[in-house]
This record gives sequence, structure tokens and C-alpha cells, in this order.
Amino acid sequence: NVTVYGLLDLGLQKSNGDARSATWRNGPADKAWNLAQSKGSRLGFRGSEELGGGLSAQFQIEHRFNPDTGAQNNATSFWSGRAFVQLTSKDFGAVYLGREYAPQYFVAVKTDPFGQDGVGQFSSRAYANFQSKGDNGARTNNTVGYKSPKLGGLSAQVAVSLGEGSTSRETGFNVEYASGPLYVAGAYARQDQGAVGTASNSGDGSTLVLLAAHYDFGVIKPVVQYSRSELGPTGNLKNDFWLVGATAPLGAAVLKAGYARFDPSGANNLQQKIAVGVDYFLSKRTKLYADLAVSKQKGTISGGNYGDYRAFAVGYQHNF
Amino acid sequence: NVTVYGLLDLGLQKSNGDARSATWRNGPADKAWNLAQSKGSRLGFRGSEELGGGLSAQFQIEHRFNPDTGAQNNATSFWSGRAFVQLTSKDFGAVYLGREYAPQYFVAVKTDPFGQDGVGQFSSRAYANFQSKGDNGARTNNTVGYKSPKLGGLSAQVAVSLGEGSTSRETGFNVEYASGPLYVAGAYARQDQGAVGTASNSGDGSTLVLLAAHYDFGVIKPVVQYSRSELGPTGNLKNDFWLVGATAPLGAAVLKAGYARFDPSGANNLQQKIAVGVDYFLSKRTKLYADLAVSKQKGTISGGNYGDYRAFAVGYQHNF
Amino acid sequence: NVTVYGLLDLGLQKSNGDARSATWRNGPADKAWNLAQSKGSRLGFRGSEELGGGLSAQFQIEHRFNPDTGAQNNATSFWSGRAFVQLTSKDFGAVYLGREYAPQYFVAVKTDPFGQDGVGQFSSRAYANFQSKGDNGARTNNTVGYKSPKLGGLSAQVAVSLGEGSTSRETGFNVEYASGPLYVAGAYARQDQGAVGTASNSGDGSTLVLLAAHYDFGVIKPVVQYSRSELGPTGNLKNDFWLVGATAPLGAAVLKAGYARFDPSGANNLQQKIAVGVDYFLSKRTKLYADLAVSKQKGTISGGNYGDYRAFAVGYQHNF
Repeated sequence: NVTVYGLLDLGLQKSNGDARSATWRNGPADKAWNLAQSKGSRLGFRGSEELGGGLSAQFQIEHRFNPDTGAQNNATSFWSGRAFVQLTSKDFGAVYLGREYAPQYFVAVKTDPFGQDGVGQFSSRAYANFQSKGDNGARTNNTVGYKSPKLGGLSAQVAVSLGEGSTSRETGFNVEYASGPLYVAGAYARQDQGAVGTASNSGDGSTLVLLAAHYDFGVIKPVVQYSRSELGPTGNLKNDFWLVGATAPLGAAVLKAGYARFDPSGANNLQQKIAVGVDYFLSKRTKLYADLAVSKQKGTISGGNYGDYRAFAVGYQHNF
Repeated sequence: NVTVYGLLDLGLQKSNGDARSATWRNGPADKAWNLAQSKGSRLGFRGSEELGGGLSAQFQIEHRFNPDTGAQNNATSFWSGRAFVQLTSKDFGAVYLGREYAPQYFVAVKTDPFGQDGVGQFSSRAYANFQSKGDNGARTNNTVGYKSPKLGGLSAQVAVSLGEGSTSRETGFNVEYASGPLYVAGAYARQDQGAVGTASNSGDGSTLVLLAAHYDFGVIKPVVQYSRSELGPTGNLKNDFWLVGATAPLGAAVLKAGYARFDPSGANNLQQKIAVGVDYFLSKRTKLYADLAVSKQKGTISGGNYGDYRAFAVGYQHNF
Repeated sequence: NVTVYGLLDLGLQKSNGDARSATWRNGPADKAWNLAQSKGSRLGFRGSEELGGGLSAQFQIEHRFNPDTGAQNNATSFWSGRAFVQLTSKDFGAVYLGREYAPQYFVAVKTDPFGQDGVGQFSSRAYANFQSKGDNGARTNNTVGYKSPKLGGLSAQVAVSLGEGSTSRETGFNVEYASGPLYVAGAYARQDQGAVGTASNSGDGSTLVLLAAHYDFGVIKPVVQYSRSELGPTGNLKNDFWLVGATAPLGAAVLKAGYARFDPSGANNLQQKIAVGVDYFLSKRTKLYADLAVSKQKGTISGGNYGDYRAFAVGYQHNF
């Protein structure tokens, strides 16, 4: 009644070494050849138990690590991927408790042509700097959440990450519609109750709106994302993020491309990133990949200035 | 030949926030709603091999973690639950080496109506402040131990936790008798050879005696525990602990209740705790629970003063 | 598609307590009885997937821990044993990425009569102080490697451990020939590109040559090892290591014995170690063992002086 699963991903990465800011830099900080992972390597355990009457119990714990050194990825959280326990009703949906992806993540990851992995990913700005609760907006600790069943293609998730008296509370939800080739979804998140964070990227009353869609034409699947955050106690920082991209199958390969622009509060500042890549599947579980990304900046951006950053990666990923 | 097992437990806990001392406070330190576990969440691996001639080999390693954040529970010991290897003879019993529960734990856990879990548990004082070797008296590192086979309901365990030149050695044993509805047991532990510890709660020559019993009438199972520690090099601190409680099945539920008093050395000082709770089993492996506990103190207690502490928890536990 | 494997090893170890240097001291630093492991206790996960056309994918991650306390063995690397992903062609060999044993390890471990385990092992000097990349020369992080298929008993491994701009790069290879009772092998390693390390034991341009062989006569299997390191930017330190030993099966037991001498740069300095031991197999997976080692030193040795050191261990090992 326990399934062991995971993946290892490693490849060679090289960049132009412009490491003035870690933001929107999904690659090495130096010019040297680096052995690094594109997707987070993991070992997980999950299981499900039928309780009768349409009820079932689930759990999932997922460890993240760096296979180039064997070190755990998150020094303070061994099970940094996921750690939750869930009670599911077939008709009424699931309640879960623990550390889990935030509602906005599930929308964003499905509409990033790179799946939020590797040098080409757009995750760093996908939440428009709404990132107070750690993990760059993707996950929250101390979460009580609800996932609805699918009703005619429609589903929803609601989550509250408790502040527990010392950090700000994060509340969020998403609504997703998936029917045939069409996927369209929205997510909202809000932080409250905290003096935690600074005006620039978090704090009491900060909000995020994220809208995204993709349509699978078969030969190509275009994706689009838009997110807007209003940050700080008075919502005085307004940041906008746009992403357009596409994936396209080509035999055993999948081509990936995307362009994104992040326009934060303030005049004359803009970040842009363009990325292309290809996955070559040796099997359903194992692939080779090559990704290339270029990002540019104009003006001053909260969270650090940097110049032009270029990186590429060729790698190997095995799922088990 | 390897069994993977574990459990995840999480629930909402709330207290009156009187956190003047961590002792006998099995709940949040603040008034905020907290997502927290009642029983220690774990992932374990164990196995057994037949060696022939009535001999067999066993191992068990058990990791403890906090599913609300994904962090390991014990920062210095990943396998903080158990980590031992064992050689068993069917006729003569088992020798084990490693980190394992101390003899007094097995007696105490069976006679705590809350199973030493959650806000209602009495484990904090169950060893009457005999707690020098860490883990609140429940486990010891560097242990060579012996577990007898069951002879007509009678069994025994002996353990020596080596001091290894830098910490005090702990020696202990238990004798348990279980026959039909009756369970009666005693345990003894002693620390030696150490300048380690302070007079108040450990040190050379400290001893513990623990006596406990329960009787299963079917409709109710009353339990009783008594422990006495004599602490410090000269045994000058004498602490007494009493617990009475009961569990009672009620359909798919089990009711739990207990009252304990801890009377440490010194005049006019006393701690009391009363707790009630209910487990509702969705299956053998999965349950909901609600627990409530109130503790009070009179006078000065070694290990920290505190006022009245109240906490309750509602939660969900899934075993796999 | 995932295999869970591992071992636990624990026993009692005692030494004369001469702990002036950790080098070549494979036992307790004090005179007390210690509960300690001889072989590194581990929990591992590995798997393989057929990709078709003679290709296959493998992964392996191996955690090391100390079962006497439950702590992870390497504080900065949870998967300190191995962590790599591999793509294998039946005809052309395997490319692997990650943290893996260095080429010199595979030769040395096969020709150490104690398998580089316990108080009797010779691993501490087996690489003649060529040990810059951590793990005493046995493993390297950030490694891109190749393992050839076996061609008429001949096989080879090549590995590059990337410096990634901050540590020295290590390059190495081995060639092994195994046919019937004969095994003969050589390994070479070199560090480059680094200002890292000191003249005494590492640094730019340091090299290692290791040659070893064993021959299995059935009643006895003699082994011999020779290694030479030239250390420092100018190769000004030349260290020599010799090992002769043998293992011999005797019913369910295996006798082990070895003698080694380490003659580092400089006049009138020499370390010698002699060790004997016996393994008694309760099954293929489970054994008891007893080992005894004595080491002596003359003169001043880089890496710390020490006097005579003696240690013995009796223990129990269970593989799963």
C-alpha cells in the first residue's frame, strides 16, 4: 500500500556568468561548466486507502535532493516537495493538511512551456513577485486545503496557510476548466495578518491574480499566462507578468518555446526572457533535453539589478 | 524483504498560550491556531530474515518528521524513531544493537490512555523527570539490549546504553506480564559513571522505578501508572508521579480519559493534568480524533514554572 | 521498478585511546567501549528501465547513517553513498552523472582484505594521501563518467569531477582485468585547475597511481596493492603505500589478514598497520565478525603525528 516513486535529473549547464541577481537566473552563477539538475530530483512515497462509503485516505511525502552532491535540496525541510495527508470523498472532494503546492502553482505549472523546469522556465516571475511564504510562491507550509471533484471539466482548490502567530497567513484558490483540447484557469492569493515581509515583495494585504490558458491543436499547443500582484500594506507596488509560449510534438521529441515580460511598479523598467528547448523521449519515463534561455533587463528592478543573462543546458532525466 | 511503513498525523491545535515552560505542555506555545501533529509522523523500513535453527535477523529504521513543514523532527538524528539491528533466537530471545526505546517506555506507553500522543498525553512526567539521555526518557542511543521470549505471558527486556566516555551510562530493565485482560508491568532504570547532568534531573546514580497495569473489562479498560525517580548524585531529589485513566470503546470510537499528578521534591509543589479525548476510526488504519487537556501547577517546580495551560486538538491520522 | 536495499552494521569497539590523529585510526578515539559500525550502514534505492535497442536507464541513490544514534553519516550529503543517473548501451558501455565512487576506489576496495571496512581496513592510506575532493578519495561530486562493457575480462572506467569554478577538477580512470581466479587492475587520478588544497595533500597537478591484484587459489586469496601519490603544485611530495594481505574461506567463516606500510615524503618516517579478522556468515546476508588492528608510526607524518594505536571490534552485520 505504499508506492515509491521519484526522478533524477542531471545535465551540463553553462552560462555567461552574469550573476548580479539570482532573480530570473535559472542556471549557473559562474562561467564554469556545471553539473546541475533542471527538474528537481526527488524520492517520494504515496498511498491510498479505501474507507468505504465513497471515502478514501491518501498521503504523500516527497523529498528533494541534488544528485550532483547527494545533499538535500532544502536545508530546513527534508520533505520539501510535498508532505500532506488527505481525506477524500468521491462526491464532495478532498480535504488535505500539510505542506502542499499553492493553488496558483497548479495553474502556472500547466501553462509554462518548460513545466517550470530548467534554464528555460518562467517560474521566477510567474507570480509577479508575490512570494512571501517561501518557495518562490509555489508551496506553503501549515496548510489546510480543499480540492473539489471535477464537475463537467470544472474543478477548484482552496487553501489557507496558517500564520501560526509568527508569519503572515496566505489564503488562495484556483478554478480550472479542462475540456478536450482547452484548458483555462485562474488563481487568486492573498496574505494577511503579518507585519512580515517588506513592501517590495510581500506583506500584509498583498494579492495575486493569475490567469492562464492553453489549447492543444495537436501539432502545437500554445499557452498564455498573465499575473498581477499588488504588494505591500497599501498595495502600492503593482507588478505585471505576461507569458506566451508553445509546445509542439515532433516524433519522439517535444519542442518548447516561450517569451515572457515582467513589468514591475515604476517607470522605465522591464525584464524580458526568451527560451527555446527540446525534449527527446527515450521512453515515457526517460528523456534527453536541451534548453537555451536569454534574459534582458531595462532599468531598476526590485529584487536586484542584473545585466543580460544567457544559459544553456543539455541533460538527462529518468523517472521511476 | 523490506517493509515500508509509516504514518502521517496532522490536526488543528489551539491553546491558552501560557508557554512559560515547555514541560508538560503538549501543544502550541502561542494562542494562534496551529497545524500540528499529535502522534509523531514517520516513515520506516523493517525486515526479517530466517537464518535456520530457530535463528532470525531483524532490522528496523524509523524516520520522524513534521508534515506541516516537511522538516525532520530531530535535527541531529534523521532516524530518531528507531535504528537497530537484532539477532533473534526463537527459544532464547533477541539481542539488539542501536537506538531503541528504553525498557521503561514500553511499559509507560501501554498504560497511557492517550498512547503518549497529542495534547492529552502524560509522557512528559511519566518518568518523573528521569530523562538524562535525551528523548525525554523514551529512547537511548548506543544501546546493547536483550528482549526475552514470552514465557506464559511473562517477558522481560534489559538494556545498556553505553556512555562511550562522554555521557552517563543508562542501564534498565522491565518485566511485563500479559494474560487475557490483565497487563501488569514494572521497569527500572539507572544512570552511572557520569558527571553529566545536573542535580535536578539527572546525573550519576539517578534511578527510576515505574509500575503500571491495565485490565480490559471490554466496556472499559482502566489503567494506572506510578513512577518514582531519585535524582542527583546523592538521590536527594525524590519525585513521584501518579496516573489513573481509562479507555472505552463505543462503536467505531474509543473514549480516552486520564488524570495525573506529579509531586516533585520540595514542599508545596504539585502539577496536575486532566485530559479527555475521543478517537473515531474510519478504518483500522485511519482515524479522526479530538483531545482536550488542562494542566495546573502549585509552587515551584524544577524545570520551569508555569501557570495553567489548556489545549485542544482535532486531527486526522493515517497509517500505512 | 524500484529496489530498496541496505545494510545495518553495529558492534562493540575498543581501542587503546591514542587519538592524537584521526589518520589511519579506524576505531574509537577514547578507551571506552563504543557501539559503532564497521561497514557504513545504508539505505538505498535503485532501478533500471529497458529503453529498447540495447539501451537502458539506471539510477541509484544511497543514504549512509549511523544506527547507534540514527544520525545521517555525512552532515552535508544525505545521499553520501552514491547518487547518480546512468544511460547504458549493452555494446558501448554506460555514461553516468552525479556523485559516484572514483575509479581508484573500485580497484582499492576489491584488493583490501577487509573490504575497506572496520578497524582492520587500510583505506585511510590506500590512496597515499591523494584525497583532495573529500570522502578520503573514494567518491567525487559533480562527476561525468563512463564505464565500459566487459570485453574478454577487460573493463575500464573514466571519470571527470567538475571543479565548477570553485574546487579543483579531478580526472581519473581505471583498467580492470578479471578472468577466472585472476584480478589485476590499475587506476590513475589527477587534480587540476585549482588553487584549492595545500601542498601536503592535494592541489593543482597532484596525481595518483594505484596498482593492485588478487588471485583466488580457492583455499586462500592473496591480494596486493601499491599506490603512489605526487602532491602539491610541483609534485614535491611523493608518498608510497604498499599492502599485502589475504582472505581464506574456512567453512562458514572467512579469515582476513593484511599488512600495509605508508612511506610518505621525508626521511625516517613510516607508518605500518597489521590487521587480522574473521567473518562468520549466518547466511549470505547476515554475519558476525571480529577484527583486530595494530598500527605504529616512526617519525613525523604529514596529517598529524600519533603513537601506537590498537583497536578491536566484534559486531553484527545484516544486509537487506
